[in-house]
Amino acid sequence: MVHSILDEGYVCHLGFVRDGSPVVLPTLYGRVGEHLYLHGSTGSRPLRMAGQADPGLPVCVTVTHVDGLVLARSAFHHSINYRSVVVHGVAHQVTDPDEKREALDALVDHVVPGRSYDSRPANAKELAATAVLRLDLAEVSAKLRTGGPNDEPEDLGLPHWTGILPLHKGYGTPVPAADLAPGIEVPDYLAVL
Amino acid sequence: MVHSILDEGYVCHLGFVRDGSPVVLPTLYGRVGEHLYLHGSTGSRPLRMAGQADPGLPVCVTVTHVDGLVLARSAFHHSINYRSVVVHGVAHQVTDPDEKREALDALVDHVVPGRSYDSRPANAKELAATAVLRLDLAEVSAKLRTGGPNDEPEDLGLPHWTGILPLHKGYGTPVPAADLAPGIEVPDYLAVL
Repeated sequence: MVHSILDEGYVCHLGFVRDGSPVVLPTLYGRVGEHLYLHGSTGSRPLRMAGQADPGLPVCVTVTHVDGLVLARSAFHHSINYRSVVVHGVAHQVTDPDEKREALDALVDHVVPGRSYDSRPANAKELAATAVLRLDLAEVSAKLRTGGPNDEPEDLGLPHWTGILPLHKGYGTPVPAADLAPGIEVPDYLAVL
Repeated sequence: MVHSILDEGYVCHLGFVRDGSPVVLPTLYGRVGEHLYLHGSTGSRPLRMAGQADPGLPVCVTVTHVDGLVLARSAFHHSINYRSVVVHGVAHQVTDPDEKREALDALVDHVVPGRSYDSRPANAKELAATAVLRLDLAEVSAKLRTGGPNDEPEDLGLPHWTGILPLHKGYGTPVPAADLAPGIEVPDYLAVL
């Protein structure tokens, strides 16, 4: 379940400590087996901190999907249906060039599966400008809520509508870039989303 | 823009420091003016910490919307269109009963606008079991990315499709609770979502 929750998300929330205070930033990620990869400019704060820090940067990475709004008869029992994964660990900068390439492919394929085969891979300059962090999926917890409201027995007769409003991810129609050459069609891997 | 980004979200990611390590948890929230309110069981970790801590619990609260997948010709320029708000500050437990009730109404109305008028308010026992944190919207930043890919001039002739795949929030059909009495119709405030 951890893998499926991670693989379905687009953005994780990366938490780290800066000068004793918490920082939470949204960022892209990818997964290869039991490793999570995050990337950023080599100049960005958490990437610099992970590079400087020895032995790495303590982080917490959280991915959450909201699946539905749960409307109970009582305000107290309102809730949401959700699935989340929380990963604790120490992030390390990836220095091995092969692992870095694999991680960057995973990041692109996480956004759109198969896309790394249909785009120009990073060149040496781009690779040098990109820092990649690896976080092991070792200390991981998944949590979820499903199902309807749990009202108190004494509230069952109240006149309020009660149930779930499902939420889902919706995709719009692909919008070609203004400078896309004529004759390049929307790829199949987008059409199936 | 800060308010609209916050008001559109269902879940924030609450970051705090526990034993020197970062923790990021998804949680519901509500907004009243320039205050953000989070709630939880009085036994939950961050709520206990905010209650014990003097003068409060340093937190970072982040809300992110993913608006689109940005497919560039080069792997390097892949991105997402997003809007995010990051709030830094010190969270304090709300002790004033009137403010607590107002905050809980805001939390319910944040899930579904108008719902607090169509559900049973918290009773004394529920109020006592719920802790509410207040965070001032003082140190706040909003970030966003919009628009198409930014490919390198030398990549414009590559044969890859390039553009945006828009993402949006989709609502399903309301699912009544199994024990909903016949004759209670789906309320209008759900139908307009």
